[in-house]
Order: sequence, then C-alpha cells, then structure tokens
Amino acid sequence: MRIEIICTGDEVLTGKITNTNFSWMAQKLEDVGLSVHWETTVGDDRDTLLAAFQLAGTRADAVIVNGGLGPTVDDLSQEIAAQAAGVELALNQEWLTTMEAFFTKRARVMPPNNVKQAMLPATAEMIDNPIGTACGFAVDIGKARFFFTPGVPREMRRMLEEQVIPRILARSGAPASIYLKRLHSYGLGESHVDEMLKGVEDLDPTGGVKLGFRAHYPQLETKLTVRGTDMADVHRKLAPVTAEVKKRMGNFIMAEDDQTLEGVVLAALTATQGSLALVETFTGGAISARIAHLPHAEHVYRRGVTVRHFKDLHDIYGLHDVPLAAAMTEEAAAAVARAAREQAGASHALISLIELDEGADRIDFGGTIWTGIATEDDVVVRRSRILGGREWVRLGAVEMALDCLRRKLQGLPVVERIDFERT
Amino acid sequence: MRIEIICTGDEVLTGKITNTNFSWMAQKLEDVGLSVHWETTVGDDRDTLLAAFQLAGTRADAVIVNGGLGPTVDDLSQEIAAQAAGVELALNQEWLTTMEAFFTKRARVMPPNNVKQAMLPATAEMIDNPIGTACGFAVDIGKARFFFTPGVPREMRRMLEEQVIPRILARSGAPASIYLKRLHSYGLGESHVDEMLKGVEDLDPTGGVKLGFRAHYPQLETKLTVRGTDMADVHRKLAPVTAEVKKRMGNFIMAEDDQTLEGVVLAALTATQGSLALVETFTGGAISARIAHLPHAEHVYRRGVTVRHFKDLHDIYGLHDVPLAAAMTEEAAAAVARAAREQAGASHALISLIELDEGADRIDFGGTIWTGIATEDDVVVRRSRILGGREWVRLGAVEMALDCLRRKLQGLPVVERIDFERT
Repeated sequence: MRIEIICTGDEVLTGKITNTNFSWMAQKLEDVGLSVHWETTVGDDRDTLLAAFQLAGTRADAVIVNGGLGPTVDDLSQEIAAQAAGVELALNQEWLTTMEAFFTKRARVMPPNNVKQAMLPATAEMIDNPIGTACGFAVDIGKARFFFTPGVPREMRRMLEEQVIPRILARSGAPASIYLKRLHSYGLGESHVDEMLKGVEDLDPTGGVKLGFRAHYPQLETKLTVRGTDMADVHRKLAPVTAEVKKRMGNFIMAEDDQTLEGVVLAALTATQGSLALVETFTGGAISARIAHLPHAEHVYRRGVTVRHFKDLHDIYGLHDVPLAAAMTEEAAAAVARAAREQAGASHALISLIELDEGADRIDFGGTIWTGIATEDDVVVRRSRILGGREWVRLGAVEMALDCLRRKLQGLPVVERIDFERT
Repeated sequence: MRIEIICTGDEVLTGKITNTNFSWMAQKLEDVGLSVHWETTVGDDRDTLLAAFQLAGTRADAVIVNGGLGPTVDDLSQEIAAQAAGVELALNQEWLTTMEAFFTKRARVMPPNNVKQAMLPATAEMIDNPIGTACGFAVDIGKARFFFTPGVPREMRRMLEEQVIPRILARSGAPASIYLKRLHSYGLGESHVDEMLKGVEDLDPTGGVKLGFRAHYPQLETKLTVRGTDMADVHRKLAPVTAEVKKRMGNFIMAEDDQTLEGVVLAALTATQGSLALVETFTGGAISARIAHLPHAEHVYRRGVTVRHFKDLHDIYGLHDVPLAAAMTEEAAAAVARAAREQAGASHALISLIELDEGADRIDFGGTIWTGIATEDDVVVRRSRILGGREWVRLGAVEMALDCLRRKLQGLPVVERIDFERT
C-alpha cells in the first residue's frame, strides 16, 4: 500500500505556517501500521495542483490531500480534483442541506459563496465533516484513490481518524490487527527513556511489539505498536511489555492512551469529593486553564488567583507576617499554600510561585519554581530550577504543578528529580 | 525563477518531527522576494530520493535539498546526487582537511565514518559549513542547480542565509520584490470578509496584489501579497489596497503583521501606565494566561481571579447585596467589574462571566457571555450568546474579552455585533 500526502495552500508553501497537519497525519497513519511514502506541498495554483494530483495518481495507491476545501476563491481542491479525474463538478444536494442546517443551528444565514463547498467531482464519494462546512470526498485519479480533507486541524483530524483511515485500511486488504498503546510521562527526556527501556520489545519473542516515542515538551509519549493475528493475540503480546515499561518508568507515567494529566487530576479529586484552589504567578493562569473548564470541574474547582508579584499575596491572604517581598522561602510558600486552601475552603491548594531570572529572553534564561500543595493534614513544597528560555520555564512550571498534584493524589512522592531541572 | 525544496529523512516523513526547517527556509526566501513553487518530502530511501531529484530537475531552476549529509549509513544525499547528476563520488580533500581540523580543535579524533562526509559528486561546488562536519554542495541535475544543505537547523540556517540564497539571487537576475501584509481581525467569518473585500485587488490596476485568508477561529488573518519591481513599487501598490481593506473592515481589525491581540492590549495599557484586573469563570484563566506572562506585563498585570460559580464572587468581593446566585444581569456584572477593579487597585478590570447551557457537549451547546470592563469613569457590559460546543464557546469568550478591552482602550465601541454571536 503506497500512500502519499499532498498539502495545499500558499500559507504552508510560503512557510507562513508550519505544516503540523502533515506530521499529525503521518503519525496517525504510522500508529495503525501505514506509512507515508512521499509528501508534496504545493500552493493555491491551478496548474501546480493539477500536476501534483496527476503525478501522485501515477505513483500511489492512496493519496490524502489536505486543504483547499474552503468557500473562498483560493480554495481550488474540488475544481482541480474534478479536472484531474476527468469529470464535471456537480452540486451535492445532501451536503448543501447539511450546510444550511449548520448555519441555521447557529442562527446565521449561509453566505452564497458557501455553496461552492457543496460542489464535488461528479464521481466523488462524499466524506462527512460533522464539525465544519468543508465537505470531504474521495475520488479516483490515475491509479490512486484520493481522499480530500479540510485544512482546519480539528476538522481534518476527526475526518482522518473516523473516515479516511478506515477506508484506507479496508483497501489495503486484511491487515493484521494493530493496536497502539500510549503512555504519557513527564520529567524524563526521550533518550533517557530510550535507555531505560532497552530490550523491552524482546519480551514479545515474536517481534510483534515496536517501541517508539513522541516528545512534545514537557510531555513524552511512549508508544508501543503491536501487530497480531487478532485483538486477543495483540493483547497477549502487549501485556508483558506494558507491564515492564510501567515498572521501569514508575512514578513518571502520569496518563495512558487518551487520558490527559489534567483529566487524571480531576478524576482523582472527584473520586474523593475533593476540591481545588490555585495560586499562580508567571504561569499567568495557564495551570488553572488546563483544568477549570473541563466537564465536572465545576464540582471541584473552587478558586484560582494569579499575581505577578509575590507581595500582592499579602493583601489577598492576609499574610502580613510572612516575608513575601524578598526571595521566596519554603516557609513562605507553605504559608501561601495553606492560606489559599483555607480561604477557598478547598481540600487541596496547588501553588506555583516563580522567581524569574533578570534580563531579556535567551537560551539560558531560567526560573526558580516553588510548587506547593496544601491539604488539611500537611503542606509539601518543591523547589526546582529550570533553564531554557521564558517559554520553556513557563510550560515546564505548568506541567510540574499538575504532575506534583497528581503524585500527591496518587500517594506518590511529590519530590522526585526530573531530567529538566538543574538542581 | 522556479524554486523547489526537497526535505529528506524518515523522521520528517513519519511525522516524528515537524518540518520547521521547511517553513524557515520558505520564509527566508520570501523575505528576499523568492518563492518556493513545490516542496517534496521523501524518506531515507535510494529509489525515492533518486526519483525526487530527477523530477525536480525537470521542473525547477533551483532546488534546495535539506538533510542526508551526515556520517551514517542512512545519509544518502551525496551518493544519490552523484547518481542523478551522472557522475562519480570523489573525495574532497579540502573538506577532509577542514573536518580533521574541526575534530582536532575539540581534542577529538575524527571517527573513520566521517570521511563519507567529504565524498562529493565529482562536478560539485563545495559550500562551506563553518559550524559542522556536514559539507554543503551545489551540482547540476537536469536543468536545475541543486543546493544541498544539512538537516541540523542551525547549520542549515547559516548555510542558507550566507551561501545558498546569495547564489540563487545571483542566478535569478533581478527578481521582482514581494511583500506580505497581514491584518488580523476578530468577529467576522472568512466568507463574510471575502464578500466585504470584493474588488479591493483591482485598486492596483497592474494586478500586483493578491488577497488571501487564513482562518484560525476565533481569529481571521487577511493577507495581501504584493509583487512589484522593487520595494518602493510594492509599497506604492499596497498603500491604496491596505487603506481600503482597513476602511471596510473598520473596528474589527485588531492587529497587523506580527502583532497579537494581547500584545496590542498590553501596549495600550503600558502606554497610559494603566493596569489590569481580571475575573474569569468558564474560561478558567485562559484570558489571563494570554497576557500575564508577556514581557513587561509584570508592570501592568495586577490580579486575576477565577471561579466556576458566580456565588463565589460574593465573598471575594464582599458583594453581599448583589444577586449573584441567580441568572446574571447587567447590573450584577457591572458590580463585579467595579469591585474587581477597586480591590486590585487597577485602572481597568476585565470580566467574563459565562452561563453555560445544561447537558453534555454538542454542536449547538452554547453559552451566554457577560463581558464587562470597568474603569475609574464608567462600566460597560456586553451580553453575547455563542453556540458551537464547549470549546467554541470557551475560545470565543477569551477572544471576545480581549477584543472588548482592545476596543475600550482604543476608544472604539465595545459592543458591535459579530458573526459568531446569536443575539
């Protein structure tokens, strides 16, 4: 099964936006045992699009095209697909009705130029887009089946997973069962985990388990791709490898598969009828914004407070005897955590007080992060130093705060050295 | 001058790493008035590399190849370049000497497999890499001049800027100048703006201005790409079109080029020595997290408070006479905004109080958003209803809050109907 991807759009071709749609698609295909052989990016230009479609049609079995399905004049994918397939464009009444309903539901009138989005090559199979007005479709060009997807990431992602990949898998014959197990960790670098997990693939002597990683700071995703004759075989092969990976990575694994760190934290608080108060500084509300909006968080989330200067905490918490204007100390951080918990009437307070380095942003710009957790029984404070620029510090502090709370809620040590910290 | 870029490497083709080298190269070329016509990504595979080189050699005048110049067995660029050019590989004694000096300087002995990096196609022009062992080179394949660059970003960047771009410019004669003007708006949909701007391209009778869009909800980027004989010509063509676009889009344009909405807000507050207090609910801290961490925000940002239930605002602000437990009203929202401003001692308070629909997330799940701004002189409250699912409401509310504050700071009407709202 030879698969190609064609990405379209001047904004991608000019480098105005980085092509994350491509890497996401390629990874999703890898996850189900499919591989991309060739990728092409071309702009919003009729001749170039036609040439790209025709070339891919001579080489590939399946081609995924991304972008160019919008309502505006520079969206050309349907038109050029029809030309390459040697057919006319025809109005897809079903999609027109779907779009009209889409606008009606939002109490808007569909602009006339949206009709263009329902014009598909006459021989095309419509592919549903449940969350947007760009209609996907499949059509044969040359010897390949082409799948057209929208450029809007969330629409493309849903369409690829739910509609395109199953169609490609069906065309690729009857593949062995494939399963992807994912383990999300925080605090260990990719090469460190690669060392730690040496040999785990061999725990399945049939060679059916492949280990891979995807680093997206500050998280690392460890992926186990398993092939077997059926799902029972897959799970038989996977079980000993997963158990060994979990054993070796230990407390650093914070979530599995579609779980998120914030989801795990929310579930743990919900399970014990707990509640949460937050205090942030340089993270600016980003810790809070990971959890406060989640479904059911309204039963757990009590209060978040953000300031940019420690001294502003004096008034908020009535901590007039605590030295907050000077350098932070473990005692002062503990006092803030206790006060935040009490004032909000929460079972847990999570605080992140950050002392930033002076001066302009640079590669060795750092921050000293005081992460604290107060419960009715105790307070724990962790001091960490992270270097790597303002964004590196900010993102690292958000993840560290949530992971410390996860550890606390799971009865694990809150303080455990991570690869990203300096001391 | 037709330019293509070929990116090589399994890591890029499988999506394991996002291809930021490509977007960087494309932008650098755009900056000097050159455009990429076609991009290809292929893996570390002999047949595919050869096919990619040969194809580009039939189409382009200049081709930049990235990656595959390393010392390991999967680095194939020199070998396949020689094959495509129909010449042998030959040891480049100059580069071997350079590499040996490179290792000596670092008190290391050059590993034998590094010799491979000095093997270039016999007809190649060597291109210096002052910071690494991967030697760049240029060679003719088909009708194109090929420029081979290393995959390591900092080596590629330096080689592209100092060596490759000057060579391509020299070959291209006197290229037209190109400029991209960007206008960022909030509140108008892409097809609506497309309608509004009908005909603006014609204000430049030479056809040198091309209109385009990039929608990333809730923002829309309107792009004007201009070609001219030189930059003076470009700006002459651009001026009337930009003026007309600004006139038609009016108050909805919130930022230009590299500006961000939050940056514009922060700059406006800074310019008047203003300061900011925030109150959030369902947005969970996300409004705050857009602005609080920015450089210089520490002089402006006073305090952010997030709750998930309006009634929790009673205690925080001492608003015991304000009915906050029932449905929100304009008066209650105004009272919260005033109290938040006073308590934090800020010149401006920005609040976003959201009443979410009941039930599970769905495409017509909505929220009633009360956005309020208090200053010393007055309070303005805007009520909006947005439908489209939890995330749609949340992201829309964040943008609406920041844009209302931008409008207030710029003396524009805070309440102006947008395409995304229901009432």
